[in-house]
Amino acid sequence: MIRPAVPAAAVRQGSLRELNLAVVLGRIAAAPHPPSRADVATATGLTRATVSAVVDDLVAGRLVGESEPAPRTGAGRPARGLVLAGNGPAGLGLEINVDYLAACVVDLAGGVRHHTVRRADLRPVSPADTLARLVGLADAARADAERQGLTLAGAALAVPGLVDAAGLVRLAPNLGWRDVPVPELLSGHPPMVEPVPGIPPLVVENEANLAALGELHAGPDGPVSFLHVSGEVGIGAGIVLDGALFRGVRGWSGEIGHIPVQPEGRPCRCGGRGCLERYAGQEAVLAAAGLDRADLPADTAAARLADLALAEHPATRAALAEAGQALGVAVACVVNLLDLDTVVLGGGYALLTPWLRPPLLAEVSRLVLTAGWSPVTVRPSALGPEAAVVGAAGSVVRRIVADPVGWLNRTG
Amino acid sequence: MIRPAVPAAAVRQGSLRELNLAVVLGRIAAAPHPPSRADVATATGLTRATVSAVVDDLVAGRLVGESEPAPRTGAGRPARGLVLAGNGPAGLGLEINVDYLAACVVDLAGGVRHHTVRRADLRPVSPADTLARLVGLADAARADAERQGLTLAGAALAVPGLVDAAGLVRLAPNLGWRDVPVPELLSGHPPMVEPVPGIPPLVVENEANLAALGELHAGPDGPVSFLHVSGEVGIGAGIVLDGALFRGVRGWSGEIGHIPVQPEGRPCRCGGRGCLERYAGQEAVLAAAGLDRADLPADTAAARLADLALAEHPATRAALAEAGQALGVAVACVVNLLDLDTVVLGGGYALLTPWLRPPLLAEVSRLVLTAGWSPVTVRPSALGPEAAVVGAAGSVVRRIVADPVGWLNRTG
Repeated sequence: MIRPAVPAAAVRQGSLRELNLAVVLGRIAAAPHPPSRADVATATGLTRATVSAVVDDLVAGRLVGESEPAPRTGAGRPARGLVLAGNGPAGLGLEINVDYLAACVVDLAGGVRHHTVRRADLRPVSPADTLARLVGLADAARADAERQGLTLAGAALAVPGLVDAAGLVRLAPNLGWRDVPVPELLSGHPPMVEPVPGIPPLVVENEANLAALGELHAGPDGPVSFLHVSGEVGIGAGIVLDGALFRGVRGWSGEIGHIPVQPEGRPCRCGGRGCLERYAGQEAVLAAAGLDRADLPADTAAARLADLALAEHPATRAALAEAGQALGVAVACVVNLLDLDTVVLGGGYALLTPWLRPPLLAEVSRLVLTAGWSPVTVRPSALGPEAAVVGAAGSVVRRIVADPVGWLNRTG
Repeated sequence: MIRPAVPAAAVRQGSLRELNLAVVLGRIAAAPHPPSRADVATATGLTRATVSAVVDDLVAGRLVGESEPAPRTGAGRPARGLVLAGNGPAGLGLEINVDYLAACVVDLAGGVRHHTVRRADLRPVSPADTLARLVGLADAARADAERQGLTLAGAALAVPGLVDAAGLVRLAPNLGWRDVPVPELLSGHPPMVEPVPGIPPLVVENEANLAALGELHAGPDGPVSFLHVSGEVGIGAGIVLDGALFRGVRGWSGEIGHIPVQPEGRPCRCGGRGCLERYAGQEAVLAAAGLDRADLPADTAAARLADLALAEHPATRAALAEAGQALGVAVACVVNLLDLDTVVLGGGYALLTPWLRPPLLAEVSRLVLTAGWSPVTVRPSALGPEAAVVGAAGSVVRRIVADPVGWLNRTG
């Protein structure tokens, strides 16, 4: 028997109205400039009457608004353009990391409307207490969103660990979490968002994956296939292929921190030796630079290292050279395996790119078979340490844009 | 601006007849038992009259045949089932490897109708002379296919190297090829197959990719996401995700042979040190087992190693343990990165699986973060060393099944 490459016989079922709502909204979201109703009709092949009826529904549902008319350039009256609404549903992004909690609100148009970070070493705090603090941040974010006329329609939580499909955090080694059932622990608190059919109230996801998604959607001109490497206490990677996050068979892809860069090297918490984290993780870099981690909150460590590197502090320069070389060995593995041509340095690495990139690229040139005729680009993340929490909120928003029917049909 | 997840407004254009031909043929190809016309109508949502007209076209075009009736089990006359034709178009698979050339013909139903292997050390032979020899094999395969009533409708050539989209072999290190323009060198020879609109007459592709595809389509019950590792003189990998080959941005994915398993270890031709190939490639294993490679054609080396391992030859057992351990380090990197749960050992490794698997799994358990609650399966390839050439021929056949219109519309 041969498995055919032909698609299934029927396109996904759904009423014509539902399909048209998604197609028109998707078109408005993807347009480089606010399109008129006539532009949308031309681009989608729908009639102008259908587009107008659908747009009316989207405007009534606070999914679409109309921009101010463009300045008059010719004879006729300039058309007003259609834009994603800035006063409708919004996504709540949350993040738990080793040294901070964060919350943010992103509107349908991608605007960040609220962003708070609360610093604290969370390693001694129990998962239940950590989540209770997070609920406090979420409540404040919700109140601020409502003051701005927005309705939180879903939430996504970024955690530095391996999460299963039910939201169970199987392992977050740097937090010390193992088998933490996040949805169950949150069930004693009031819901953080308004229930919307078809939109999960809370998705729990690996932070490196959400950071990569944040980066993908940060601008219209970025690469559609890349490796996003986040350097914090741990090192995570998100793999984006053809504009979609590659999650792996069970959602646990991207554990780049445990690629052995020195197999007979330093022992690692994971049981291996010489893992990337032991050479390029934040603790390793701080130690090599002669800095005392206890004096330095994690979220200021990268800035402190960048200051010292700019001042040509020899130990810091050497530490970053070693980290870049180790990153280069791991990145070379990834490029040899996946044939990606772009690496985005995120999290704490974004600020340190000027010093990490040269040794990283030297290793890539040495170890990647195709490097001679096909260069690899290394660039800093646009969002830096905020990528995960912004990516989390953005993931909610994209879900609404992709399938707006649940929001339009909600009661209340 | 937000990039929407909504699909483009219009499904791929094409006449209704073309779509129906592909849908009906795809359904017949995918059915576990030969379906009746009525079964196809039910499964596709098309009317029985439409299905009958489409099936008539497919039968007239030698794409579909009718099976013998099943034994009578009840009152009515049993329906004859529809099957992919064994007397229509077929795919020509070709392979150039370090120590042999191969050709095979696969019919639409997946049956291997012709298979020849010609052994020779090709390293001293020029690319042009190698390709001339290959044309001889292709001619013999074509004559044999025609004697069996088959028409070769396309060819795919597997090479152990990096190939670009135009068929230029950028680098095949173990053959000593660099920048070999295969289509140009073949243009002086008569075409190997009948021209069919929409079917490329020759696709040149990395052998590890084609071997992984061969494995994917070898049986209906195999995994749809896996890593296929082929061990020959070089070590290549094919990455299959959700039933599709992952080629990478430029088609150069899967270079697992140069993952550093001992970064301060043995120097490698690639310029790195301690690459997997230097510990688990055929030459390394033979040397460690105390065997003289010159006495042993590459395609018998795996069988010889398996014989010695069965006889408990100490140096061979030790060599395979070292190779398995090195493979385990590389596989652990891949699993940490891609979260795959199945590894298929192909090429020369298939026969050696009993000795490679235990040390490989020991490294995976030690180095993969999720290994504790999510085991990795390691199994031998179903096709072994023939996977690449059978996969090559099968890739042609699947292209015809996915888009049969070119074949039906051809002149002559």
